[in-house]
Amino acid sequence: METFHIVPESRHHTLVAAAYRHRGYAADEADEGARFCAEASRHGIRTHNALKALHLDHLFGSGSKGCVPKAVIEERPCRFPSARIWNANRKLGQSTGYRAMAEAMRLADQYGVGTVSVDNAFHYLWGGGYVMDAAKRGYIAYTNCTAALAEVVPFGGKHPTLGTNPHSWGFPTTDAIGYPIVIDWATSVVAMGRVQQLKREGKPLPPLAAVDKDGNPTTDPNAAVSLLPFGAHKGYGLSLINEIVGAYIGGSLPTLRNRWAEDGDKHTCTFFFQVIHPEAMGAGAFAKGRSQAENVKAVIADVLGHGNERCMLPGQVEAEFARKTAAAGGLLFSAAEIQAFDELARECGQPGWSVAEFKTTT
Amino acid sequence: METFHIVPESRHHTLVAAAYRHRGYAADEADEGARFCAEASRHGIRTHNALKALHLDHLFGSGSKGCVPKAVIEERPCRFPSARIWNANRKLGQSTGYRAMAEAMRLADQYGVGTVSVDNAFHYLWGGGYVMDAAKRGYIAYTNCTAALAEVVPFGGKHPTLGTNPHSWGFPTTDAIGYPIVIDWATSVVAMGRVQQLKREGKPLPPLAAVDKDGNPTTDPNAAVSLLPFGAHKGYGLSLINEIVGAYIGGSLPTLRNRWAEDGDKHTCTFFFQVIHPEAMGAGAFAKGRSQAENVKAVIADVLGHGNERCMLPGQVEAEFARKTAAAGGLLFSAAEIQAFDELARECGQPGWSVAEFKTTT
Repeated sequence: METFHIVPESRHHTLVAAAYRHRGYAADEADEGARFCAEASRHGIRTHNALKALHLDHLFGSGSKGCVPKAVIEERPCRFPSARIWNANRKLGQSTGYRAMAEAMRLADQYGVGTVSVDNAFHYLWGGGYVMDAAKRGYIAYTNCTAALAEVVPFGGKHPTLGTNPHSWGFPTTDAIGYPIVIDWATSVVAMGRVQQLKREGKPLPPLAAVDKDGNPTTDPNAAVSLLPFGAHKGYGLSLINEIVGAYIGGSLPTLRNRWAEDGDKHTCTFFFQVIHPEAMGAGAFAKGRSQAENVKAVIADVLGHGNERCMLPGQVEAEFARKTAAAGGLLFSAAEIQAFDELARECGQPGWSVAEFKTTT
Repeated sequence: METFHIVPESRHHTLVAAAYRHRGYAADEADEGARFCAEASRHGIRTHNALKALHLDHLFGSGSKGCVPKAVIEERPCRFPSARIWNANRKLGQSTGYRAMAEAMRLADQYGVGTVSVDNAFHYLWGGGYVMDAAKRGYIAYTNCTAALAEVVPFGGKHPTLGTNPHSWGFPTTDAIGYPIVIDWATSVVAMGRVQQLKREGKPLPPLAAVDKDGNPTTDPNAAVSLLPFGAHKGYGLSLINEIVGAYIGGSLPTLRNRWAEDGDKHTCTFFFQVIHPEAMGAGAFAKGRSQAENVKAVIADVLGHGNERCMLPGQVEAEFARKTAAAGGLLFSAAEIQAFDELARECGQPGWSVAEFKTTT
């Protein structure tokens, strides 16, 4: 069983916000960035915790040309009341994501459904975090984005021209089952980080997850150069949705994305957010006199009944990690992660972290 | 190469509408039913042509308790301007689908985005048909429904508690590539009809498409009793979306669906429709001075470039069949299908069809 070091949330926030400010971000951006990373850690999303967020910011964000500290989001003209269109001007992804989802919730309160389309966006890290937040507030939420790089080969093709293009849906099922259902994944079978991990560990890839330089499927992580969509033509279609939605918003060619050049083209990502108020869907005639929440609970119980009691719901693992985090009274990190936070602290002139100072749990 | 008999569209419409009227449907329902079936045949969707539609109507619709001829759609209270909630009262699925999508398009014209949630619905046959129609009119459209029967086992489970629950997305890409991109599929690997077909042909199922009576995966169509979602937990999540959306609208337990009993419960399906006006998404800053449609065209060309020229786009096969249909000057049916239409004609007192009277094409 893994040992976790328990870091008080305020301590985490102080360091992560300082790290963002050290890179030039404004106080509100630093707060939003740190808050989002805490949510990732609270829910066990280690691939998008603060360390990864700041590493990506270094590689592709403020350390490169992808993200501009203190950028101002510009509202673009839109003649439709239920929709907003923003030019994020490469603002920090977490700030843009939180603000766009908040705007979509306001639109849903007023109109029943609202959409926010965002051009010139920078990596929002974990789409599930935004829809989970909205779902906890009682909304049905969705987001997709175009991923930073074209790493995925279209079904039947050879060359990577699609992003790993994730989709995220959140449902306000806390009343029904104790936590929001969050369906959140990339449209590739695995991420490129997983290929690299398996390469280091000398283990094979799952079948039909990657292709070699000639476009032939391979399970050898050393031969793998590009990824495949999950579920053949179905995952390909889902990946294509993000590219097409991005193209309607203002994204340019997927193979140019985040490959910066002074070529008069656009290299940025796009985001799409949508929120529906659950009362904008309920026909008010639930069986057996149930309320809407009771009906959702009954349907989920039916799906997980009849011998399916061991099935998991999407969002369940994250909810269980959040309970573990709450019980521990702080965010949970491995010794290696504490060490990396310590290095981060030195980088930005903050007090260091040491494993010795934190209580542990398993 | 298959030989097709070319049936003038008016001839098809006359017979199919007469068959619907013969079963008690009103003239407008019969027209909508026949129009939708013609679209299915025009696009090569033989699994949902008029013969299948009328067969399903016999098994589950007006011949059973699933569909009520001349039912009146009742608008339910909704305090949100961008959303409509309907009780379809088991009206013919094609009529409900066409009308709901038309309403969603009107909402999108006014608000940018509109949703129509439909309780007590009956099978709309081919979700792709409604989003394709909306996409041809210039809209970004989406629909999902809960499938008639619970035939799919949740990921990690044993018992079928989910429908084959399809999703359909349509994009108005006719200006860009000559036809709308239509992403439309069930969330199971295959349909139960495919299992039965492979059983008849003595051929194996694809891996991880079905389970036996104990919930173990099998490729033997004789042992297969339930279906599996495509893409493991990802397809499972997509299937769950339809059940949850259905539960918010008013659908009851998936395992009760279309299993009629006087038990005071609900046994009907639900539909969800959504339309977005493309101008409600465009930030107006496309690279290289492109228009929105030109940008979509450029993005698609990039995805299908770089050695991917042999990849297909979702909706391409359907568009090619529609071109073949247009070139032939009539809807295309096999000899066996003409024979089945002839039997249908006799059933409802219409002039018979004979293969000899129709021109052919390949």
